Order: sequence, then C-alpha cells, then structure tokens
Amino acid sequence: MRMLDIITKKRDGKELTREEIGFFIKEYVAGHIPDYQAAALLMAIYFQGMTSRETADLTLAMAYSGETVDLSPIPGIKVDKHSTGGVGDTTTLVVAPLVAGCGVPVAKMSGRGLGHTGGTIDKLESIPGFNPFQPIDDFIRIVKEVGVAVVGQTENLVPADKKLYALRDVTGTVEHKSLIASSVMSKKIAAGADAIVLDVKVGSGAFMKSVEDAFELAQEMVSVGVLVGRNTIAIVTDMNQPLGMAVGNALEVKEAIEVLKGEREGALKEVSLLLGAYMLYTAGHCRTVEQGCEMIEEALHSGRGLQKLKDMIRAEGGDERVVDDTSLLPLADEVIAIKAQQSGYISSMDAYSIGQAARLLGAGRSTKEDAIDHRVGVVLHKRLGQRVEKGETLAEFYVTREDNLQEAINVFNEGIIIGDQPPQPRPLVYGVVTRDGVERW
Amino acid sequence: MRMLDIITKKRDGKELTREEIGFFIKEYVAGHIPDYQAAALLMAIYFQGMTSRETADLTLAMAYSGETVDLSPIPGIKVDKHSTGGVGDTTTLVVAPLVAGCGVPVAKMSGRGLGHTGGTIDKLESIPGFNPFQPIDDFIRIVKEVGVAVVGQTENLVPADKKLYALRDVTGTVEHKSLIASSVMSKKIAAGADAIVLDVKVGSGAFMKSVEDAFELAQEMVSVGVLVGRNTIAIVTDMNQPLGMAVGNALEVKEAIEVLKGEREGALKEVSLLLGAYMLYTAGHCRTVEQGCEMIEEALHSGRGLQKLKDMIRAEGGDERVVDDTSLLPLADEVIAIKAQQSGYISSMDAYSIGQAARLLGAGRSTKEDAIDHRVGVVLHKRLGQRVEKGETLAEFYVTREDNLQEAINVFNEGIIIGDQPPQPRPLVYGVVTRDGVERW
Repeated sequence: MRMLDIITKKRDGKELTREEIGFFIKEYVAGHIPDYQAAALLMAIYFQGMTSRETADLTLAMAYSGETVDLSPIPGIKVDKHSTGGVGDTTTLVVAPLVAGCGVPVAKMSGRGLGHTGGTIDKLESIPGFNPFQPIDDFIRIVKEVGVAVVGQTENLVPADKKLYALRDVTGTVEHKSLIASSVMSKKIAAGADAIVLDVKVGSGAFMKSVEDAFELAQEMVSVGVLVGRNTIAIVTDMNQPLGMAVGNALEVKEAIEVLKGEREGALKEVSLLLGAYMLYTAGHCRTVEQGCEMIEEALHSGRGLQKLKDMIRAEGGDERVVDDTSLLPLADEVIAIKAQQSGYISSMDAYSIGQAARLLGAGRSTKEDAIDHRVGVVLHKRLGQRVEKGETLAEFYVTREDNLQEAINVFNEGIIIGDQPPQPRPLVYGVVTRDGVERW
Repeated sequence: MRMLDIITKKRDGKELTREEIGFFIKEYVAGHIPDYQAAALLMAIYFQGMTSRETADLTLAMAYSGETVDLSPIPGIKVDKHSTGGVGDTTTLVVAPLVAGCGVPVAKMSGRGLGHTGGTIDKLESIPGFNPFQPIDDFIRIVKEVGVAVVGQTENLVPADKKLYALRDVTGTVEHKSLIASSVMSKKIAAGADAIVLDVKVGSGAFMKSVEDAFELAQEMVSVGVLVGRNTIAIVTDMNQPLGMAVGNALEVKEAIEVLKGEREGALKEVSLLLGAYMLYTAGHCRTVEQGCEMIEEALHSGRGLQKLKDMIRAEGGDERVVDDTSLLPLADEVIAIKAQQSGYISSMDAYSIGQAARLLGAGRSTKEDAIDHRVGVVLHKRLGQRVEKGETLAEFYVTREDNLQEAINVFNEGIIIGDQPPQPRPLVYGVVTRDGVERW
C-alpha cells in the first residue's frame, strides 16, 4: 500500500477502504508517513469529503492508535458527554455530579482550553489542591467509590488525533465535519465511553457558525457513533453569547457551584439539566427524556449533585470546602466595571469577543505552552436582548495585571452592540439529533 | 503575512495576490515554510485552480527564485522550444540545428529523462566525449560562435521548481494545468528565453491524455507567456505512439542525424520542421509560418542543419564524426526481433508501454539516482494503422543484459494491439494555440 495512491484516490473522489484508512493512521503515528503527505490527504478530504463509513473507520483507527481506557471494572453503561467548545461553557462541572447523584457513574476525561474556549481541566485546577492527572487505576477507583471523576487525558490517548490536530491547525483543514467528528468521537471511544451525549455549539463563539452546519456536524457524529456501536445523541445549543455569566477558570467553578446550590437560574443550568437528562436516557436509567429531566431536577434540589461534586473534589486531592465557601477559590482582587456606552437593547454579546477578552486578561492560552491565570476573567451582568441604560455595568473584569487590559476592554466592547430595538430572540436549544433522525425544536 | 492565511484563502476559492504568491515561493525556497504547508496549498490549488494572473505571478516568482541566465550578449530574439515530454521525442536534436542553420541563434537548456520519457541531455551524452554541462560563459560563447548550443540546466536554476516538483510528485498534485504551466514556463524564463514555442503532447505517452486537456494546458501556458511578456505559441501533437521510430538514447541520436541527412521521413521530421517554422516565426525571422517552413526545409536540404549539429557536438567536446558515421555511436551488439503474434492492422502502439519497455532495457530511469545505458532501446519497424503479418518484425530491442528483458517484452506486447480493421487515423498535429486564440487543424 502506498500513501501516494491513497492521496490520489481521495483526490479523485473515491471512497477509501478500511485498510487504507488504517494504514494511513498506523503509519502516520509511527512516523513512516511524512506530514506533507498527511497534509495533502487532509486537504483532499476537505474538498472531497468522506462517507459516514469512512469517517467511522477513521474514528476507530484513531481511537485505537494509542492507549485506551478500559472502564469495564465500573458496572453499568458508562455515558460520556462532550461539548464542541464554547465560552462560559461549564456544563461538565454541573452535569457530571448531577448524573452521578442519580446513580449513573460518570468517568470523564477532559482537555485543556485553547484560544477563546475554556477547558474543564483548567477550571478544575483552579480549586486549591485539585490534581486532575490521576493514574488510571485511581481514576476508576474514584468513580467506583464516589460515582464521578473528571480527569485529564492520559498522555498517550489517541496520539493520532494529537498529531493530526496539530497538522490540521497549520494547514487550513480544521473546519471539516468528518475530521471534527472523527477527532471528537475517537477520544470518547478511547476513553471508554459506551454511550455519548454531545453538545454541538452553534454561533459566534463556536466552530460552527450556522445552525445548518451544526446540525450536519451533529448528524455526522451521531452516525459515526451508531456505526461504531456507541449509542450517541447530540443536542444543538446556542453559542452566540457565553452560556454562563462567568468566563474564566475560578469564576466558572464558582458559578457551577452556585447552580448546583440552586442559587442560579439561566442558560447554563438549563443546558446542563437537559444534557443530564439525555445522559440518564442513553445510559438506560430512565424510559423517557422527561423522566430523565425529573430525576436530574431531583438530584439538584436534594443537594445530591452538590455532594457528589464535593466528594469528587476531595477524592482528586482538592479542597472540598470551596463548595461551601466559594471565597476560598482564587479570585483577582481588582475588579473593573465595564459600563454601557449608550442606552438601548443588547443586540450582540459576541461569545467569541468575550472569550478573547478573558484570554487577554490571562484566563486562556494563545499557544499550548502558555500559562494561565486561574483568578482572572469576565463576569457578565447582562444578557442578549436585555435593556441597559448608559453607564450601567455590562460586565466586571477580574484582573491581576494591566498590560493587556486596554486591549481586552476594546475587544469586549467590539463584541457588544446596543441597538434601539430588542433583537429577535434566539432559541437556547435548536434541536436534538438521534439515530432516528433530526428533531428541530 | 502568514502561510496559514494563504492556504485558507486559496482553499476558500479566493484569488491570491502577487505578494502572497511571492511570499510563498521566497519563504518556501528559503526553508521557512514547511513542506506540509506547501503540500496543503498545492492540494487547495489542485481543487480551486488559479487564474491566469495568479499562474503568471507564480511563474515569475519561481523563475526568479534562483540563478537566471542572461542571454543578452547574444544578439536577436532568443527563442526556446519545449516539449511537455513524450517517447521517441527527439525533436530538439533536429530542430535546434535547423533553426540555427537559418541564422537564428538557439541557446537551449534541457533536462534529463524520468520514468517513461527521455531527456535530451541523456541522449546527447551518448555521443562519445559530449559534455552538456558547460559553464554559462562557454554556453554563450558557443551560441555566438556556432549559432546553437544545447546544455544541461545549471544546478541553481529555478530551485523553487525543483523543490515544488519533488513535493508534487509525492502528494498527488502533479496533474494540474496551472502547476504544470508554471513549472515549464518558469524554467524557460529563467533560462533567458525571449520567445517560446511549446510542443504539448497528447495521448497515452503524455501527461495529457485527452485533446481537450492538452488544448487547455496549451492555452494556460500561452496566456502565462503573454502575461509575462514572452511571445508564446503552442502546438498540440499526438503521443499515442512514439514520435520517432527509435526509443533509447544513442538510437534516437542516430535517428535525428538521419532526419537531418534527409534519409528519413515521418512524424519526427514533420513535427520538427513545424516546430522550427514556428520558432523562426516567433523570432521574427519570417513574416508567416509558411515562409518559416520554406526556410527550415531549405536548411535541411542544403545540409546546413546537419553542419550545425556537427559544429555543436565539436564545440561541446563530442566526437563530431558520429554525424558522418553513426556506427561510432555506442549501440548494443545484441538485437532481438519482436515478432507480430497475429496478422492484422496495428490498432494500438501505446507510447507509454514502449517507453516503459525501453526503460526496463536500461534506457531510462525509475528514480533520479538511476544510471542509464546509452546503448539500449527499441527501434520500431511499424506504425499505428499499418498492416502486419504474423511473424513479421514489429520492433528490434537493443539489449545489453537479460535481467529485465522478458518483462520489457511483456510490457511492449501489452501495448501492441493488432485488430481486423485499420484504426481510425489520428492527426499528427491537432492544432495551434497563439495569443489570438485556438486554431484546430
């Protein structure tokens, strides 16, 4: 088998066999296929696409390109949850303890944030003492004892994705649905998921800018999940404004705790509860999604979710007292209020700009090597469509250094548009994709 | 300027600026842009194409990426000739001396052969003592003194093409008209051509398999030539069978000498005379192509072309006596007759297969590093459409070793089809492309 033949076959619009895809992944990870041939194939895939069968074969080849996690010591159907990435998207910290509070084990591997999006592992590391890099045995032990663990990906999980993603990032081949789907799904499979609930974000702060594209990506991932034998459901949710009110690591942990305490309403809570209900449903823990919703609500109101978060923090070496006293979280002392420059209705609160502003304050990374500052970030006081008066506080910036502050303020302000009329309201959830098809809400 | 932005711009179907193309070539040759990004751009170009303006800018950026040859010490319009590559294609050895015999100087740089196609430099090196690697000063001196010199490309001519061609070869991006056009034209421009006559080959032994594709490539190259200020004319000629009767280095030199002596008729002579007429015409040496034809015929009949070849061989260190006595050329002693396996009409004499057979005998290279044997090759006794009887000789193989002989015979025989009916006759010349448009013959 020759890589050149595989490139020209895909270039000419033909379907690659499982053997050809397997050869590519195996030899590429082994360093026998050079980056320039992989780049040519990726660009050919960008133009010619892949069938669901090809995408499923790519997903499996990638999933088994390195270490995999065996969750079979944990009884029951292990359901994982994945967000395609957004701003103020703290659902994992809310939903994982709630699902565990319903008696369904959650063994979850998460990543770090890059660019304008945050990462769950970064957020958890803002809790004093918390160590997300648990050996696999401890990871499984914690899930068995506590019911939930969220840990960092092991070093050698899906090396094919690490290598391919780095290449896609510099060759203009990130934005392709089959490639995104195989990247996401291979990591979930390697991490041991039996079933998968996906939160496909759409809007200015997401990879997918249009609702159509988001549904197509959701369908692609669900069909791959079905083809590889993992029951997969995707919900498509809005990312035109940050999901929560907080953007920044410790700030988002604080907000998640407040949701679990029942102190906060809003989009973050709504999407978290819905994801939780679908997780219970795909785990076979309830007969209908409605039942799942009732169970999740009950785990919230009873405080069982909050207790699971506390137990998990303790089990992973963190200071569990942050749950009762969020002032123990590291937050910047200096808080700057950003005021509305005119009166009117907020017609844009661009999630991308707000993510970038938080990154500039130090909450995120420009490159993988950058250090982040857990204490900083943005707390919104308003949401899309709300009325504001000139001089009213739109947001607070938690800052520890001045050097990028003015740029952060400028970027933030560029993302805010205040108009005379309230904007057309947008749905928070656009619909659900299951193996049976697309259901638009 | 960032290479990633250039890749995504082309990927999205937008036109690159001259500055972007110049940046790519300069930084790629300097080693600042990695092969994987160049490969991604090439594949994006493969799918999205380039405008004539972009192709012209790419051509110039490549042409000036290394050393260039200044032919201005030679008076007059220097016209170069280029073939897109074929089998038994010895026109340069016929036409260059003829054009010089008409008083138009020919300063030509040629390449080596690869795969099933031959290279003029390899052919010339079969002449005892001939050294095609002349220093530039000697090259120009010989053209001034003799009127014609054919030399090997200098090491640092168009390094961008060397690097890009090697990359295209392994990334499935060879077969694209803009990339072929820029590769060909950049070398002609760097070698100092004021005007260019192209011989675009079409058929089984050529890059372009269809007449439509060949005309499109011809138009692409002519429009690039016009855009960069080099009067360019292309003729589209048949390569479904070898152009001459000989395929192999010394054998082709022998055939070219025989054509110049007036001892041989046929396709090689016809195409050579036509190319010569167009070279005189583009050099402004005649008012019409018909006048050019008469001049070239006169240079042939008068023996002035033959004399120029002799003078050039001597000037480049070769044994000029080969012209009067072709038995001084190194030819294999063993000659094997390949017989027709049935009676009928030759309906295929596939140029690619015959080129491969000659390569297997040792006349060509599989990789750039292979050595070639000047003594071996194939001499055809028949042409497409001719009647043959079973047992009649189709061709003679000149062989020096046995190891690939049977494979060469098999490959040759696979390319020969003998049918009951004579095939539809094909034109030798399909037409001409000038700046004024396409003229189909």
